[in-house]
Amino acid sequence: MRIGYLGPEGTFSHEALRALGVGAPAGDDRLVELASVHATVMAVHEGEVDRALVPIENSLEGSINATLDALAVETEEVVIVGEVVHPVHHCLVVREPIALERIRTVASHPQANAQCARFLRTELGRARVLQAASTADAVRALAEDGRAQAALGTRLAAELYGGQVLRDGVEDDPENETRFVWIARCESSPPVGAARWKTSVVFWGPGAEAPGWLVRCLSELAFRGVNLTRIESRPRRQGLGRYMFFLDLDGRDTDVPVTAALEAISGQVERLRVLGSYPAA
Amino acid sequence: MRIGYLGPEGTFSHEALRALGVGAPAGDDRLVELASVHATVMAVHEGEVDRALVPIENSLEGSINATLDALAVETEEVVIVGEVVHPVHHCLVVREPIALERIRTVASHPQANAQCARFLRTELGRARVLQAASTADAVRALAEDGRAQAALGTRLAAELYGGQVLRDGVEDDPENETRFVWIARCESSPPVGAARWKTSVVFWGPGAEAPGWLVRCLSELAFRGVNLTRIESRPRRQGLGRYMFFLDLDGRDTDVPVTAALEAISGQVERLRVLGSYPAA
Repeated sequence: MRIGYLGPEGTFSHEALRALGVGAPAGDDRLVELASVHATVMAVHEGEVDRALVPIENSLEGSINATLDALAVETEEVVIVGEVVHPVHHCLVVREPIALERIRTVASHPQANAQCARFLRTELGRARVLQAASTADAVRALAEDGRAQAALGTRLAAELYGGQVLRDGVEDDPENETRFVWIARCESSPPVGAARWKTSVVFWGPGAEAPGWLVRCLSELAFRGVNLTRIESRPRRQGLGRYMFFLDLDGRDTDVPVTAALEAISGQVERLRVLGSYPAA
Repeated sequence: MRIGYLGPEGTFSHEALRALGVGAPAGDDRLVELASVHATVMAVHEGEVDRALVPIENSLEGSINATLDALAVETEEVVIVGEVVHPVHHCLVVREPIALERIRTVASHPQANAQCARFLRTELGRARVLQAASTADAVRALAEDGRAQAALGTRLAAELYGGQVLRDGVEDDPENETRFVWIARCESSPPVGAARWKTSVVFWGPGAEAPGWLVRCLSELAFRGVNLTRIESRPRRQGLGRYMFFLDLDGRDTDVPVTAALEAISGQVERLRVLGSYPAA
């Protein structure tokens, strides 16, 4: 199988794949690195890869908006087929040993910068923060162009690109973890045989103009005893007040209460799409 | 009055204040620029400023997480007393005229970079993106240190810092707008005399472990005919699956249905706080 992920090598997505044993040299899977979350979702859509692992939610910073937006808006043929929770520990990586207070530039992905905001403020308060396309890009660029003196990224990236780990675990919360989802084309063989299932859906509707609308939709779940584990809103990019809602539900989309609740919601929204029904991590 | 905002001069917060006529030379108000959203909220908390204007939601990128987190977690003494919607048009600002394709570095705040993602990808695909503390910082730094050749920011910043606007309206959506809220200490005189009110609250509770809990809470609103115009979840930074929920409701917190609904919700959550009740924009 061709497995896509947000590259280059050494990102947290890559680290999570390694931890799962995916892409090991002896195996049949071939890892395909992609330039952005958007490109990763579209590579599945186009059939360039068979599956991909994309981050969807972080315990410190919340939703990965690029993933939600791509899954909801860019394609109707990509579904979630599984989920994985992976711990996220950031390293401060440098080219060669340097005192913390002498670091003037540090680069990483904005999410990583946000997850390490306290460390950046207190320990690297004088450093300029550069925005990289991914944590691994930031570490790789250390060796290549030297525009930043330090980068926040994985230990794997430091090893791959010959950086030195100056400080480990610089995230604001040592319990920091990211939830990733496996995505595939909708006609691919669905997941089977799990004890616990989760279903992710997105919908939007008349919005704020219709009083009580959102609660009515959610009541269809409560009424049938379907548990809502997460709700996230994202702008529909049509002005303030127009949102799409992402829900995670306990249960499978073939379970009677889930099917019935989703059917009932469908009748009240402009659009509802099941993003996937998959074994819970 | 001392009015705080996310500085330096020339940010969108500053531009919104100018559009409101706040801080005009002839007036009594004194503008106080602050280094971050967090610092702005805390300046109100500490009484260093009497009021502040902070961004809370953008029509393209969604919530301003730093604002929600600071209001929910960092203080219990700062309330929302008003809201303002301001159009957000980004300019590509340069020090001196240069062809677009020769630009190798462009700086701005991550939110601005996200709002102009398409422009950056298609027109400045070869440019390195630097992360600035604010859009105005990015424009100011053009003149000061020249590390970036271009910046995304307001026309006001270009004027203030002597930059040239190479391209106007480079945001992904020309309808781009940001909702700001006025914040003040809770004992300050409350707003009066509006035709339409809004109430913002935050709560958290047992979470995913309690089936149907969130919907039950929201049903207390629907049951009393209180319209929910927005719901946003943010991690409580205590691991995946633990969220706080931000709600915007139609109505004032002294209206009987709103009071009754909030009391009913209070009985089912660990914590509920009214962030403010204020005239709707």
